[in-house]
Amino acid sequence: MGSNAETRRSGCPISCSLDLLGDKWSLLIVRDMVMLRKHYFKEFLASAEGIATNILTDRLNRLEGGGIISKQPDPENRRQIVYTLTEKGVALIPVLVELMSWGKIYAGTTSVDRDKARRMHQDRRYKQRVIRELTEGCTSTPGRS
Amino acid sequence: MGSNAETRRSGCPISCSLDLLGDKWSLLIVRDMVMLRKHYFKEFLASAEGIATNILTDRLNRLEGGGIISKQPDPENRRQIVYTLTEKGVALIPVLVELMSWGKIYAGTTSVDRDKARRMHQDRRYKQRVIRELTEGCTSTPGRS
Repeated sequence: MGSNAETRRSGCPISCSLDLLGDKWSLLIVRDMVMLRKHYFKEFLASAEGIATNILTDRLNRLEGGGIISKQPDPENRRQIVYTLTEKGVALIPVLVELMSWGKIYAGTTSVDRDKARRMHQDRRYKQRVIRELTEGCTSTPGRS
Repeated sequence: MGSNAETRRSGCPISCSLDLLGDKWSLLIVRDMVMLRKHYFKEFLASAEGIATNILTDRLNRLEGGGIISKQPDPENRRQIVYTLTEKGVALIPVLVELMSWGKIYAGTTSVDRDKARRMHQDRRYKQRVIRELTEGCTSTPGRS
């Protein structure tokens, strides 16, 4: 879904990425999985942004259709679904880190030291370390919270 | 617009960024300005994705309201508006580069050497150079196409 030729607006890779991710919620679900280690519907529903049940269902289906997340029955409670990031989803971590870095300086985020945020925005080595640590966190554990 | 407390869903910088940029079109307009050196309404309208006039008008207003672009009368033809990126808009270049890098591998983009794209996705030094060159391109010229 969203990644086949019929639904692509152009061949531009930025446009193709936005065909899959260009809305207010999809990357927040990926954020929940990467940074908050969330894996369950109820956990996503409880996030601070207050996503509605029907939007969450739709976005989880779209993310799964786009190959960014996968879902399986939870081995510990098979009536429950556990969502995990695929390799394609984990590879979004650098996008999240750049959105976070930009947002800290420019998007009206509260309680942020903007001078520090500006230095970090320029510091590729620091970002690289954050990306590596988050990626390791997503790939070294079996994906349970 | 989009960056004041009333319209923020949470204080998370990723969420705040998506409050401003989380749609299918806004970052494509920024892409047009960064990578294609477009500065005029008609130029954005002519992009491959086929944005509708009313959506383009809305997104330009939102980007201006969010402080990402600014508009002035074109000095060479004062009946025409020229759009340029602010510092806040130029600082989005790393986000664009990461979306491009991810899209080349994962978003179904055509005519891409995926092995090469994968190597580039890992190569922070290469990305850093691309970001620097695009940033210089946006800040060293007076912003005319």
